[in-house]
Amino acid sequence: MTINRRSFIKASAAGALMLSAGGLQTACSAAGAARGRQAAEADKFHLGAAGYTFVKFDLDTTLKTLRRADVHYLCIKDFHLPLNATDEQIAAFHAKCASYGVTGYGVGPIYMANEAEADRAFAYARRVGVKILVGVPSYELLPYVNKKLEQYPEIKLAIHLHGPDIDIYQTASVIWDKVKDYNPRMGMCLDIGHDLRGGADPVEDLRKYHTRVFDMHFKDESEASKAGWCVEIGRGKIDFPALVRMMRKVGYEGVCSLEYEKDMDDPFMGIAESYGYLKAVCNMA
Amino acid sequence: MTINRRSFIKASAAGALMLSAGGLQTACSAAGAARGRQAAEADKFHLGAAGYTFVKFDLDTTLKTLRRADVHYLCIKDFHLPLNATDEQIAAFHAKCASYGVTGYGVGPIYMANEAEADRAFAYARRVGVKILVGVPSYELLPYVNKKLEQYPEIKLAIHLHGPDIDIYQTASVIWDKVKDYNPRMGMCLDIGHDLRGGADPVEDLRKYHTRVFDMHFKDESEASKAGWCVEIGRGKIDFPALVRMMRKVGYEGVCSLEYEKDMDDPFMGIAESYGYLKAVCNMA
Repeated sequence: MTINRRSFIKASAAGALMLSAGGLQTACSAAGAARGRQAAEADKFHLGAAGYTFVKFDLDTTLKTLRRADVHYLCIKDFHLPLNATDEQIAAFHAKCASYGVTGYGVGPIYMANEAEADRAFAYARRVGVKILVGVPSYELLPYVNKKLEQYPEIKLAIHLHGPDIDIYQTASVIWDKVKDYNPRMGMCLDIGHDLRGGADPVEDLRKYHTRVFDMHFKDESEASKAGWCVEIGRGKIDFPALVRMMRKVGYEGVCSLEYEKDMDDPFMGIAESYGYLKAVCNMA
Repeated sequence: MTINRRSFIKASAAGALMLSAGGLQTACSAAGAARGRQAAEADKFHLGAAGYTFVKFDLDTTLKTLRRADVHYLCIKDFHLPLNATDEQIAAFHAKCASYGVTGYGVGPIYMANEAEADRAFAYARRVGVKILVGVPSYELLPYVNKKLEQYPEIKLAIHLHGPDIDIYQTASVIWDKVKDYNPRMGMCLDIGHDLRGGADPVEDLRKYHTRVFDMHFKDESEASKAGWCVEIGRGKIDFPALVRMMRKVGYEGVCSLEYEKDMDDPFMGIAESYGYLKAVCNMA
């Protein structure tokens, strides 16, 4: 049994706090809070949002919500920026995001059932100017998508995993088996809720497959089985402290995008509670 | 230097997690999340809300918000239940709270400038049926209030501290000096934000004065000085992990009521983010 170094330092700091007194206590207490935040600020990953969270809301509402939550990364869904958007529309989209302090860091998920749809998805990602294409190519299309990656050296394809409800890419293991012999830029968007509902352990899957985890969808689930449904982060079965420690251990450098699928007509409190929980976990894990 | 026992156990558990693999990892990961929640569930204190958070909203909106946040304790402000409410109105108030899973655990803050106002405040607390009266008696009234406590053996008076903006009860130390020679049921509502803005350390003040801390107002502050303003919990200067550890160390058994004073026309996201952050801290501290 070993003690995680970060936890040890924090536990030791806590012990020191307990022993100190008076003005020293004040200084240590403030330093303790600052130290937690510094650890989080040193993280290479960022909190973000999956566009699907806001499927019932326009871009302005989406961006206002992210600004209030102090979250700065958005994976762009087509209902906010259509696949046939003009370059002018794309520029206007990015300008609006920037005015709210938000970066559109990726696009998708985009389904690809044939070569024309793959062509369109990759061309769209390049025109939007992102490095992450979250996509769902049919299994048969993977050899073609592999060739597309050679044509688009700036793009990583993050295949979205679906969990037990759909008979394609059900868990991270399934995706890994499909992509492991292709271009190293063909990987996955690790949806931790779908992975858990599919009977897998997202923390362990991140450890095993991190070299091909390019994006993550964050959510919590009421049960670690198909019967589970999306709940506010912290209220469900996923061990977020363990997940954050694993993200640090494997050096995850992507975005953790909240894909909140509860109360989708009025998700704002659930979104905010989820980010609050995550921020504390990042400050303390 | 000592290692806090709880932190040590958690750090060791984290270490164990890192070493385990496969199916064992799944079981341990789920157990880790459950263990954190069990620690929080064993806490003698509860998260709640100060009625003032909802000064611009009616009782139904208040209770719906608390239900969504999974928070079950409310300190009742007079704009939700007037001091001259009839017994029937009080019964209807409690019934409505119960229908949302919320308990009105205290009343106030109530200002008391003279004996008649003190009489009214204590009688109201008894008629409402609560054990906590958050009050602000003028300094001159303290001997009279001390007599009232003898007449009301079921009630604890939690004097609200105000911080640097008002020249009365500015910090926990000031309240302690005022009440320490009176009835042990004369104590304070430790407003951690006001205490911090008053130049004190709320964690250390809880340690020093916990025998007379009967209620707490939770918030965060942008600065640890009079220049600070209320922000979402976790975004400011208060070290909540240290605070929660201290609440456990001193065996605090009261309510930690969020008094959120930012964006009071639309506070719901900030309220939810604050509770999310606190829940994670309670699960991890």
